[in-house]
Formats: sequence, C-alpha cells, structure tokens
Amino acid sequence: MPELRHDPIQRRWVIIATERARRPSDFRVDEPRSEMAVCPFCEGNEDKTPPEIYAIRQPGGIRNGPGWSVRVIPNKFPALGIEGNLDRRGVGIFDAMNGVGAHEVIIETPDHHLNLSDLPVEHLECILSAYQERIRDLVKDVRLRYIMIFKNYGVTAGASLSHPHTQLIATPVTPRTVAMEFDAARDHYRLKERCLFCDIINQEIISGDRVVSLDDHYVVLTPFASRFPFETFIAPREHQYDFTMASRQQITSLARTLRSTLARLKVSLNDPPYNFVFHTAPNTQMYPRRPGYWQTIEFDFHWHIEIIPRLTRVAGFEWGTGFYINPTPPEDAAEYLRNVEIP
Amino acid sequence: MPELRHDPIQRRWVIIATERARRPSDFRVDEPRSEMAVCPFCEGNEDKTPPEIYAIRQPGGIRNGPGWSVRVIPNKFPALGIEGNLDRRGVGIFDAMNGVGAHEVIIETPDHHLNLSDLPVEHLECILSAYQERIRDLVKDVRLRYIMIFKNYGVTAGASLSHPHTQLIATPVTPRTVAMEFDAARDHYRLKERCLFCDIINQEIISGDRVVSLDDHYVVLTPFASRFPFETFIAPREHQYDFTMASRQQITSLARTLRSTLARLKVSLNDPPYNFVFHTAPNTQMYPRRPGYWQTIEFDFHWHIEIIPRLTRVAGFEWGTGFYINPTPPEDAAEYLRNVEIP
Repeated sequence: MPELRHDPIQRRWVIIATERARRPSDFRVDEPRSEMAVCPFCEGNEDKTPPEIYAIRQPGGIRNGPGWSVRVIPNKFPALGIEGNLDRRGVGIFDAMNGVGAHEVIIETPDHHLNLSDLPVEHLECILSAYQERIRDLVKDVRLRYIMIFKNYGVTAGASLSHPHTQLIATPVTPRTVAMEFDAARDHYRLKERCLFCDIINQEIISGDRVVSLDDHYVVLTPFASRFPFETFIAPREHQYDFTMASRQQITSLARTLRSTLARLKVSLNDPPYNFVFHTAPNTQMYPRRPGYWQTIEFDFHWHIEIIPRLTRVAGFEWGTGFYINPTPPEDAAEYLRNVEIP
Repeated sequence: MPELRHDPIQRRWVIIATERARRPSDFRVDEPRSEMAVCPFCEGNEDKTPPEIYAIRQPGGIRNGPGWSVRVIPNKFPALGIEGNLDRRGVGIFDAMNGVGAHEVIIETPDHHLNLSDLPVEHLECILSAYQERIRDLVKDVRLRYIMIFKNYGVTAGASLSHPHTQLIATPVTPRTVAMEFDAARDHYRLKERCLFCDIINQEIISGDRVVSLDDHYVVLTPFASRFPFETFIAPREHQYDFTMASRQQITSLARTLRSTLARLKVSLNDPPYNFVFHTAPNTQMYPRRPGYWQTIEFDFHWHIEIIPRLTRVAGFEWGTGFYINPTPPEDAAEYLRNVEIP
C-alpha cells in the first residue's frame, strides 16, 4: 500500500509509492513510452481493463461490454488504494497514514481519435455528468476528504495513454493548494460577507479586459495574475460552491463553454498539451463538524476549472519559490482567445 | 518594466512580462533552442555580456577582461528591472507593483565544459563565496525582500545556455513557498522554543535511514516527504538562519558537500538535469520592524539547499493540488546515493 507522508516544513502531503518503487536505472532512458499495440480504452477491449465502476450506455447494453459512450474504470496502476483503513500515525516529528483513496479513469469516448473539442456538445454533457456521478458516489466514503477531477492531454502534460480520458483521485486529506483557496475565500467572507470569487468575477466582467467568453451561466477568464501563458479559468457566474450542484441546464451550458474554450486553445496554440483541474468544495458531508469551521462553507468556496496549456518549461526558480514568470500578459491572451475563429 | 501581480485566491505573486510579450505564434515551434555560435559566458567573450558586477580574478586582472575564475553579470533579459520605484497599487480587488528587482548570472567557470562536480573543491569555494558577496551587497537595497540563488542544469531543467552558471533573482516580496517555510518554523518555535529544522535534522541523523552524507558541518538528506525521486536537502548541522553567515571554514566544507552530492546524483542517474535552490532568510536588515514579527527570526529559519533531479514529468494533478506522487521512497534513494562510488 502506498504511504501518505506529511512535510512539516512545507505542510504538504506527498504520496510515496512503496510497491513498484522505481530504481535509479528506471530513470536512465528518457525515450517516450511507445503506445501499446492494443489500446485498452477502445471499444471492444473492455476485458483489458479492470471491471467498470460506472458507464453511460444504451438501454439493454451489457456491463463491461461494448456500446458505451462514457466509461469509468479503476486505474490499473493506482496512486492510492481503495481498501483498508487510514492508520494515521506519528513518525517522530513527521506524520504518515496509509495511502487510502480512489484513483479512477473516465474514458471520455469509445473513439481513440476524438478529443473533447471534437466531440458534440451532447457528448460533453455525458462526460460532465459522469464526473458528477462519481463525485456524488465517492463523497459517501467517510475516509475521503477531497475528490479531484483532472486531465492530462499530451505527453508533455503527463498523459501516458493517448486515448481521450480524464482522471479522478480522491484523497483522505484536502490538498494544500485547494486548502489555501478555501482559507483565502473564508478570510474574505468573514471580513466582507461576500464571496471572493464572486467579487473577482464581477470585477472582471465589468472590466472585460480578461474575459474570453461569457454566457448566461459561465464566464471564461485569463486570471489577473496568470502563472502561465494562456492560462484560463472557467467558473459559474452565479455563486455555487460545489460542482455537483450544477443543474442539467447548467451542465449543457458548461459543456458548450468547455468545448469552445478547448477549441480556442487548440486553434490558437496549434493543439497544445494541456492540463485541466476541477476545483470544487471538499467533502463536508461526512466531515466531523468542528464548531465554526465549516459553518460558512457555502460562501467559502466557488467551484471553478483551471486550464493550463503546457507551453513553457518550469525551472528551478518556480519550484523553489512558487513565484512564476509569465511572458504573456493575460490581457493579450484573452484578446487573442476571444477573437479566434472556432471551427 | 515588468509588473508584479498578486493573486488573491492563491495569495501568490507572479511576474508578468509586459515588454517582449510572447504571442501565440512564439509557442508554436517546440524545437530546442540551438546553442549560440559564440558563447557569451566563455573567457575572451567578456564584451558579449553586460558589464560585470563582481568577479574573482588574479591580482592585476582587468575588469571585463579575461583572467577571472568566477564572474557575475546582469542577466541580459532580466525578469525584473533594477531601476525605479515599486509604486505599490491596488487594481480593484487585485494588487500590483512595478517589477523592480535584480536578476544576475553567476558564471561559475571560464571553461564551457566543466560542471560543478568536475571542478576542484577550491573553485566551488570561490563560487559559494561569490553567492555570499552578491547577497551581502543586495540586502542593502531597501526595496528588496528576498534574494534567491538557483541553478537550472540541462534543458529539461530550464537552462537556456549550457555554459555552467547559476542565477540570482532578488524580489520586492517574499516568495510564497519561502514564506510558508518561515510560518511553519515560527509556529514550531513559538510552541517549543526549538528550531523546526534542527529538530528534523537531529531526528534524521539518529535514524540514519534518509542520510546521504554527513560531516562536521553539513548533513545531506532525502526528505521524509520527498516530492520527487532523489530529491536531496543540504543543511548546516548547527543552527544558522542566513547563508551569508557561513564561515570560511564552513564554506570549504559546503563546497566539498555540494560537489560530492552532485557527483553522487550524476553517477547514479546518468548526469540528470537538475535544479538547486538556496533557501535562506529574508532581508530583515532593512525591513520595517513590525512589533513581534521578526523578533524570533534567528530561530524562525534554518537555511538549506534543495536539489531536485528532473526525472519525472509534473502533470495536472500536481499543479492543481500541490500534492505529489513520488515513485521512489526516499529511504531507497538515500541508500543508493550513500553507496555510490564517487570518482
């Protein structure tokens, strides 16, 4: 079982793989992994993956058989294991617990060659609904504190298989980056009784300089302090802290928004590698209610999606400081993305 | 002039380049930059760089001429500009200031092909002394809050020129990662009246599982919650918060330690790309003394060097969460590095 370890200096949890540990010789060859001869995510190869957890298929279709449009399976090489208890423990000054959690793969389409911006809007609705369904199921597990949906597109962005897929990792701790966002939003709310994200979104819509697109439900922005060129941020215009609260109608609008944003990036930047990450509220449902702590959760967060095209290398300065140098002002990026012609 | 912008959600400062802004077409071609025909850092090409700020050369040598062993110059394409005032300002809910700071290059040797682990220990002493001298000079500038020394080795690690060099960036804010380390160490000190880093170092030396090497002055560890395979950490064994306090004798020992650690990584991992970053105390000398805030600075930090071999790709999950998956337990890495034969 992997181990979760806490760094008391950076106050950060890290997953340490204990099985399949990589030896120095494993890092020696830096050639791109060759594609498998048979793609385990393609339709007809359902027996090449672990049994499915969830799928959207035509009525009458057979579980673990063909005929699906979206299929969710456990990751064959999970970063965290679903069985067992956490066994939280001290190791002298350090802290550790068992690497319990979930690691799933959402296969976005049976077609190996269709990416998110190529698929019809209705299909993206199915994918987004599948994300919601998986979160709604996993929040019931009291061991889990956070559920993260993310996508690595392209080898540079960390994808090891090219068949279109998203990943889900559920962790027994709230990851630091997300916890920092809650803290900032909570401090803002306690001072002003307004949501930090709502304030930013309102200001950005009025200014318009960094708005990429806007419909009744969602706004797409390039953040004021973007770390990376063409970094984009999608959020609901109306306050909503949890992604699973997005209604049927909102999911339709989000499918259209996500699809067009990815298409804008694809056209502008020649199909770049990218990552997207959903930032939604933590699992408060089963969380032991510490007095006061989660009382304002409804206003302490505002779910959003971060999309990061992987265009620049991250060097020592960024690692060492969390301080980024962005060579493209977000106003320029927004103007470019706004004006691009989407096919 | 570049602009420093603050993200109120992540509470992070970012440098936004406003001149030389990169357009989408600049990112389209992903071919490695070809080496310049004439290396501006080689001996004899001193006129190809901006005038030097500092150099170690034989007595009688001429400024900006050959005959140096270490040479410090301004970065020709600086991330921050040295002239002007900060002009701290609000932009609605956001914050910005002028991108004032310093960006220097420490050319480690006149020889294009000798890297740190190839140079004699005495030469590394000169390089480390040059780092100290530059920090001692820059702390006098009241606009600057933090001075960061870092090295990108290899294209994957962000190096754009192959001639051996280190960089220095001085910023008018304390970078978030470093500020978080201060906060953790301060909280620990206030509770226990002991240095957090000293506690960790003592525990690690007693356990020995993650110790790579040890001499009278310095310990080399693989951190308990290492983010990356073969991540290493060098720190003085005796409490010392500021790198410029390292004595002549300590610098000799550090030169030997740094050289052997880099040699261990080179032999084990086949000359991997890497980054190192010095984490030293902030510029408190000129800092307006907020009551209580810097009172315990002597115990709120313990300087150290982080070395990160760049062996694995960083994907969406890590960006989105600050939560890392490390496939090599630090105990395995330490054992391997400890036993490697250094030439």
